[in-house]
Amino acid sequence: MATAREERKAQLQEKLVLAAETRIAAAGAGSLRARDLAADAGCAVGAIYNAFDDLNAIVMAVNGRTFRRLGAQVEAAVAGAQDAPPVDRLIVMSEAYLDFASDNSRLWRALFDLELPDDANVPEWYRAALAQLFSHIAGPVAELFPEQGAEDQALTVRALFSSVHGIVLLGLENRISGVPPAEIRRMIALVLSHLS
Amino acid sequence: MATAREERKAQLQEKLVLAAETRIAAAGAGSLRARDLAADAGCAVGAIYNAFDDLNAIVMAVNGRTFRRLGAQVEAAVAGAQDAPPVDRLIVMSEAYLDFASDNSRLWRALFDLELPDDANVPEWYRAALAQLFSHIAGPVAELFPEQGAEDQALTVRALFSSVHGIVLLGLENRISGVPPAEIRRMIALVLSHLS
Repeated sequence: MATAREERKAQLQEKLVLAAETRIAAAGAGSLRARDLAADAGCAVGAIYNAFDDLNAIVMAVNGRTFRRLGAQVEAAVAGAQDAPPVDRLIVMSEAYLDFASDNSRLWRALFDLELPDDANVPEWYRAALAQLFSHIAGPVAELFPEQGAEDQALTVRALFSSVHGIVLLGLENRISGVPPAEIRRMIALVLSHLS
Repeated sequence: MATAREERKAQLQEKLVLAAETRIAAAGAGSLRARDLAADAGCAVGAIYNAFDDLNAIVMAVNGRTFRRLGAQVEAAVAGAQDAPPVDRLIVMSEAYLDFASDNSRLWRALFDLELPDDANVPEWYRAALAQLFSHIAGPVAELFPEQGAEDQALTVRALFSSVHGIVLLGLENRISGVPPAEIRRMIALVLSHLS
């Protein structure tokens, strides 16, 4: 059973994560300050470092929530298209990914902008959320490329996720090759519909 | 004819851009400080702002050089494969892109990390360098998808560039789905070889 002390710590962790999520959604992960979070959560700045190792750990916790919401949105989209051909299911999931990225742009960017020194520091629950997201892509890939071995299918899953991510990333940003959302959808369809 | 004053300004601009390039290559664009650049170029901090509007403008000038080097490397790679089928040429160019990104990781990241308020602020020479890079992709795309109209072909060029960019970006970074370089090559081949 959790002690009163453990319960207070868990409550503070939750408060801090929700406060960080609101701040990241509004101004990006780069804007996060311990002082602001302490004010939001009604605690002393030092108490933050009893609840979490550092601010990065709070961003990771927010990212975990974002990943699970993203996964749920992609899953819900493809659940309505289970009888569609594999390419169509990939397109449905990619459009759900685009919509999520577009509607939650700063939280979505925080998934990729957080500097991690190496893989060893990625928590297990984080890997699990990513694996869950990839698992939805694995079905259509296995149907599309039954001749591939398990290793190539796993690489194809990552490659297709990365491809759609690249189209969404550069498409949403007005820097390099930003285009209107309808054209991002068209680009996704142009690439995926030619897979065979 | 350039006045002596104009010549001095051009010389200082060049010194500052080369100094910034060295610093970005070593520590990333986020590390750039006017004070350091002034020391490198042997000028006063205030003189920087006579030569350039701001530090962003210096990063843009460095990015222009990087884009041209990247374009030249991709062009050289595909020049040796002009008789190959279109998919093979796309793969050759993508591998040249991966090699460039891998060998010049911080300069390459600076191409995409620079915050631009909107498209209006992208200089014309910058757009030209990007268009030049895209033009190499346009040939194989027109051969692969002759049935597409010019508009869809242009979107396919952007979509394929963005796809390969996504695979290289997430593959090189040890955050989300980083994999060894040989696997990045394999992922590129897996996606591009199935285009038809």
